[in-house]
Amino acid sequence: MSKPVPVSVIKRLPRYYRFLGSLRSKGVVRISSRELAERMGFTASQIRQDLNCFGGFGQQGYGYNVEQLYGEIGDILGLNEKKKAILIGAGNLGRAIVSHMPFEQLGFSLVGIFDSKETIAGQIIRGVPVRQISVLDEFCSENRPEAAILCIPQEAAPAIVDQLVNYGIKGFWNFSHYDINHKYPDIPVVSVHLNDSLMTFSYKLTENENKIN
Amino acid sequence: MSKPVPVSVIKRLPRYYRFLGSLRSKGVVRISSRELAERMGFTASQIRQDLNCFGGFGQQGYGYNVEQLYGEIGDILGLNEKKKAILIGAGNLGRAIVSHMPFEQLGFSLVGIFDSKETIAGQIIRGVPVRQISVLDEFCSENRPEAAILCIPQEAAPAIVDQLVNYGIKGFWNFSHYDINHKYPDIPVVSVHLNDSLMTFSYKLTENENKIN
Repeated sequence: MSKPVPVSVIKRLPRYYRFLGSLRSKGVVRISSRELAERMGFTASQIRQDLNCFGGFGQQGYGYNVEQLYGEIGDILGLNEKKKAILIGAGNLGRAIVSHMPFEQLGFSLVGIFDSKETIAGQIIRGVPVRQISVLDEFCSENRPEAAILCIPQEAAPAIVDQLVNYGIKGFWNFSHYDINHKYPDIPVVSVHLNDSLMTFSYKLTENENKIN
Repeated sequence: MSKPVPVSVIKRLPRYYRFLGSLRSKGVVRISSRELAERMGFTASQIRQDLNCFGGFGQQGYGYNVEQLYGEIGDILGLNEKKKAILIGAGNLGRAIVSHMPFEQLGFSLVGIFDSKETIAGQIIRGVPVRQISVLDEFCSENRPEAAILCIPQEAAPAIVDQLVNYGIKGFWNFSHYDINHKYPDIPVVSVHLNDSLMTFSYKLTENENKIN
């Protein structure tokens, strides 16, 4: 790629990747921008514009090669280079994330799970042993993980984040409500705010009720 | 309120609510827009503009009343009217959502949990029994839940959503990747796409590496 892809397009890439993956698994070989637009709820011209940003695989009147486009978007998203990740916090949410997420398909390999509770250490979740947080330092210098998934309460986050940055962690997938970029503005962070999402749902539901009544 | 609040402001309300809640729990009574801006990473003028949308509690040179603003934002978000919710799918993710989310503080009361697996039915999660999906119809006509939380695979979602809409469900907090609004454009839906979030994280991490090297 010569030009950087705009942020607005980047935001839509995971969705393209999901849709193309599902077409691919159904054996679809080609798709027109019109069909893709219909399925994704975008306009065909937006899709053409988006996909033009990185190569423009579409051919007029012929459509996109699903396999090729899927591969290219996966490359841009970095899904084909496995990054070593560790999970911090093996409570209910942490366990669900480990059990639920297809890390290997999405660019990561989960190499370690850590928890502060002594009773949890020693358990195995999806083939990965849970370790005491006290051996984090040693583990990181031996295994050099790049990414940390934070499933700990907000209060616990600042101290752990400081440690992890010291131990060489380069980015965070953050389920705590701690604002990592306030202290570390240059570190890549993607946050999942489940509480905010539920509040937004409450708003939409309440607003809709008021509209109807 | 006389005027509807713009969508862009609505999107920021959960974040205001979280910050104000944390100030409130620390006993902070008043805060200036400058201080709030500093903590939230917005500009002071954006905060003044946002909060002016619903009443403008700030007084020049005096700041915002934390308690009052917190209450008002909670009202707008509908957090003070408890809406009955049911959870569909008591697998790893569903269990974690039930255990992890403070429903009562965020506008909901969880009245039922349903799963298709017979072995899971009968278990109790956070005081709520897991029921067989076959009694969903009966349960809904007796209890009239308004909201459904979907923690089921995409393949299972279309049939369940049709049922739930029939049984009177008015909105979805959706963890499946099924696009509910494609078939039901008018139903309030908030989706949590954990896969998309992880892909975005992969992108940011990969992009940052390339920048450094």
